[in-house]
Amino acid sequence: MAQEDVFKKIVSHCKEYGFVFPSSDIYDGLAAVYDYGQNGVELKNNIKEYWWKSMVLLHENIVGIDSAIFMHPTIWKASGHVDAFNDPLIDNRDSKKRYRADNLIEDQIAKYDEKIEKEVAKARKRFGEAFDEAKFRETNPRVIEHQQKRDALHERYTKAMQGPDLEELKQIILDEGIVDPISGTKNWTDVRQFNLMFSTEMGSAADATNKIYLRPETAQGIFVNYLNVQKTGRMKIPFGIAQIGKAFRNEIVARQFIFRMREFEQMEMQFFVKPGTEMEWFNKWKELRMKWHQALGFGAENYRFHDHEKLAHYANAATDIEFRMPFGFKEVEGIHSRTDFDLSQHEKFSGKSIKYFDPQTNESYTPYDIETSIGVDRMFLSVMCHSYCEEQLENGETRVVLKLPAALAPVKLCVMPLLKKDGLPEKAREIINDLKFHFNCQYDEKDSIGKRYRRQDAIGTPYCVTVDHDTLQDNTVTLRFRDTMEQERVNIADLRGIIEDKVSITSLLKKLQ
Amino acid sequence: MAQEDVFKKIVSHCKEYGFVFPSSDIYDGLAAVYDYGQNGVELKNNIKEYWWKSMVLLHENIVGIDSAIFMHPTIWKASGHVDAFNDPLIDNRDSKKRYRADNLIEDQIAKYDEKIEKEVAKARKRFGEAFDEAKFRETNPRVIEHQQKRDALHERYTKAMQGPDLEELKQIILDEGIVDPISGTKNWTDVRQFNLMFSTEMGSAADATNKIYLRPETAQGIFVNYLNVQKTGRMKIPFGIAQIGKAFRNEIVARQFIFRMREFEQMEMQFFVKPGTEMEWFNKWKELRMKWHQALGFGAENYRFHDHEKLAHYANAATDIEFRMPFGFKEVEGIHSRTDFDLSQHEKFSGKSIKYFDPQTNESYTPYDIETSIGVDRMFLSVMCHSYCEEQLENGETRVVLKLPAALAPVKLCVMPLLKKDGLPEKAREIINDLKFHFNCQYDEKDSIGKRYRRQDAIGTPYCVTVDHDTLQDNTVTLRFRDTMEQERVNIADLRGIIEDKVSITSLLKKLQ
Repeated sequence: MAQEDVFKKIVSHCKEYGFVFPSSDIYDGLAAVYDYGQNGVELKNNIKEYWWKSMVLLHENIVGIDSAIFMHPTIWKASGHVDAFNDPLIDNRDSKKRYRADNLIEDQIAKYDEKIEKEVAKARKRFGEAFDEAKFRETNPRVIEHQQKRDALHERYTKAMQGPDLEELKQIILDEGIVDPISGTKNWTDVRQFNLMFSTEMGSAADATNKIYLRPETAQGIFVNYLNVQKTGRMKIPFGIAQIGKAFRNEIVARQFIFRMREFEQMEMQFFVKPGTEMEWFNKWKELRMKWHQALGFGAENYRFHDHEKLAHYANAATDIEFRMPFGFKEVEGIHSRTDFDLSQHEKFSGKSIKYFDPQTNESYTPYDIETSIGVDRMFLSVMCHSYCEEQLENGETRVVLKLPAALAPVKLCVMPLLKKDGLPEKAREIINDLKFHFNCQYDEKDSIGKRYRRQDAIGTPYCVTVDHDTLQDNTVTLRFRDTMEQERVNIADLRGIIEDKVSITSLLKKLQ
Repeated sequence: MAQEDVFKKIVSHCKEYGFVFPSSDIYDGLAAVYDYGQNGVELKNNIKEYWWKSMVLLHENIVGIDSAIFMHPTIWKASGHVDAFNDPLIDNRDSKKRYRADNLIEDQIAKYDEKIEKEVAKARKRFGEAFDEAKFRETNPRVIEHQQKRDALHERYTKAMQGPDLEELKQIILDEGIVDPISGTKNWTDVRQFNLMFSTEMGSAADATNKIYLRPETAQGIFVNYLNVQKTGRMKIPFGIAQIGKAFRNEIVARQFIFRMREFEQMEMQFFVKPGTEMEWFNKWKELRMKWHQALGFGAENYRFHDHEKLAHYANAATDIEFRMPFGFKEVEGIHSRTDFDLSQHEKFSGKSIKYFDPQTNESYTPYDIETSIGVDRMFLSVMCHSYCEEQLENGETRVVLKLPAALAPVKLCVMPLLKKDGLPEKAREIINDLKFHFNCQYDEKDSIGKRYRRQDAIGTPYCVTVDHDTLQDNTVTLRFRDTMEQERVNIADLRGIIEDKVSITSLLKKLQ
């Protein structure tokens, strides 16, 4: 199956089984915003719990906070977001649609590539087995022409984006004859910078300029709380502050389901260190974070580091952890050595001294910061993509099974009475009433046992238990395992012992030791 | 100690011990917005976990969701918030300050009460023991005059607020000669309606009216997902959908610390029932929710129901659960029988049929809804208020101790080496490294053991363990209990067994059986 089709199936599985719904679905949706359904919210909460506990429980020197989405507007001046968190946008006057100028030009570059591939495909068809593709690419005049135009455009575009030079971006669009895909016209406005932060008005003053922003990242909430946490928590360098929370970016082109949304959730940890030790900690956190991902058991071959060559102005080292999605290796987490940029900026803009006094060396300094930043929704998507399987069964049927790590599965155990009578439902509920305090149990009495297994497979439930007439006699049940589909007869009294450890977040945490 | 002083102490304790910081503190704060610090976030997360598990784990027919803050704007037309979620505001032209007209008048009513009390106090002082207060209140001409004016104003105000009649509200302010507390002038503008929803602009269309709102309640996120959850979760009436999430209201006057904030968090559960059975379920949920609160052990006398006499247009029954705060009994939770108002409105505005087909009776109907809605921040505040104690010790010192329910405490165990040498720190960390997978442990080696106990008391840590030289010999430690301050010698191997159950959310859940 093509990877594109796999992705489509995952998206529709997410809706059909209550993982992710389009937001405001009955109102035909809200672009690039999604809601988590009854199974999605449990999976998402389990991911968050795994991250939070791996940071806060396992590290003596990391504490959490939960700062508000609303922050003082000057913070976004200090961080650089007010001035530099922009996309270059252009409007078409006929369609009234707005586009990212950079995306229009990138699409145009891609068109030259497509033209080249078309020539190659045509020639391959014509020459059959005798076709020498490499030679054709090097010598065919049409291919060479497309290639030259493509390279020239790419170079001109890359140069224009430094700055960026907005007039030059528009000129490229005009020179290339790029038309609006909707109106088909070249009736373009000028290119303007468009800030990606959502803004709103707060408060009580009748005349005041009380514009505030929805935070575009949770990191700044940590930096502005650095002093309060360090002081009241008596924290000693090196130490970290972790936070999980919503962030908002007015992306013009949001793509790939929950991979890029306008409202999303971040799990960020800022680790404050002594200047000069940051590379040591940067490498340490690269290692720890990769270990966290791989503890889920998806296979080391699905992850890679992507070190940044071009660094942001505040960073002296940066890498991404990329995960293999159906649409290629994609960033799920960033690890950045941010130097003292943020704390220094807040010192400057707030006028407060943000220094750490080192009692051992009697020096004061502005700490350096290593950031680990992961998107909850991207992590969710990567887990769904890796867990989704279609398996051929012996009877010729296909089963769709979510091979979720048991600790992340929304439902841990489904208890099913074989029949809806003879006291079997009551017995099944008795089992649930005992176990439900310890993990998420579901009851299902509808349809055949086979159909019920399929439903639980589809939401990734690692264990199913069937209550039959023997159960009433000997207090044993049939325990069925999701991945192997094997079944074994066990005592009801043993169920908690068999299941609880395996489905707990603790089981993942222990792998991080 | 006056209750007002107690409250001030709690607010400052919250900041000093890392529970709640003013948001953007180094930028001198952002009005009516707060951040949760390293201990606050743990307490808050524990409250949320207690609520979530009590809903989703313990009830076979309740599932969760996590819907986005951004929603389709028509939803807020359907819910009535665009047209009717307003405060009547008035500006003073000299101070440029904006006020709620209703608050100005309520303050004026309170002034008559103050005048009466002043007269009573003066008379009591003059007449001493012979003073007959009841008679004085009934017969003193000045008291009678104030009382009459007060009652007349109250009646006029109550009438004006129905509607509300904005011109009449302004006229009351003018007639009463109410002055701006800042400018001291009566230079008032007209009273205008001011919508409490925050709005922002989303998206890509250049011209479109793409104004959206930050949700003012999480409830609507449940209603618009009703169909998707019912269908994909195969839910049968009666069933509930639970959600925890942020909501936003542009309160002009935000008061009492985290009791009324502009950004706050709700825990809401909508329970869908067959029309005609709603009063039965309303009463059932009143009982269940009160039980949930009282399981925390704060004493039944600190809670009361406050049934609403005047019902909102969508409700046919409503009650508040009030908790005794230092500033009086205050609402922490609302339980409302909302009829089919919300689902019907969304049927009308979305054009989608939102009906439930009952397979047993073969009828279709729009379900009725019972809502339980609790503010996380208010719950947090009520827990802090009740837990804060100042105790006189035998040595004459005062200890401040947070008598938090152990399951809610941010830190469960603090492990302290008696000395910073002789291998005691290593032994202490060995204990933590074993237990940290199961609950939140802290390490502290600074200052005397007595001071360390005080610090843990102040953040509500239920257990402390001291590692001394004997520990190295016999693997026993001194376990100290927060509330009784009693100490006992226990084996390290027994610690998990002694502590884990008592500090787990499960221990609270079991009380709900």
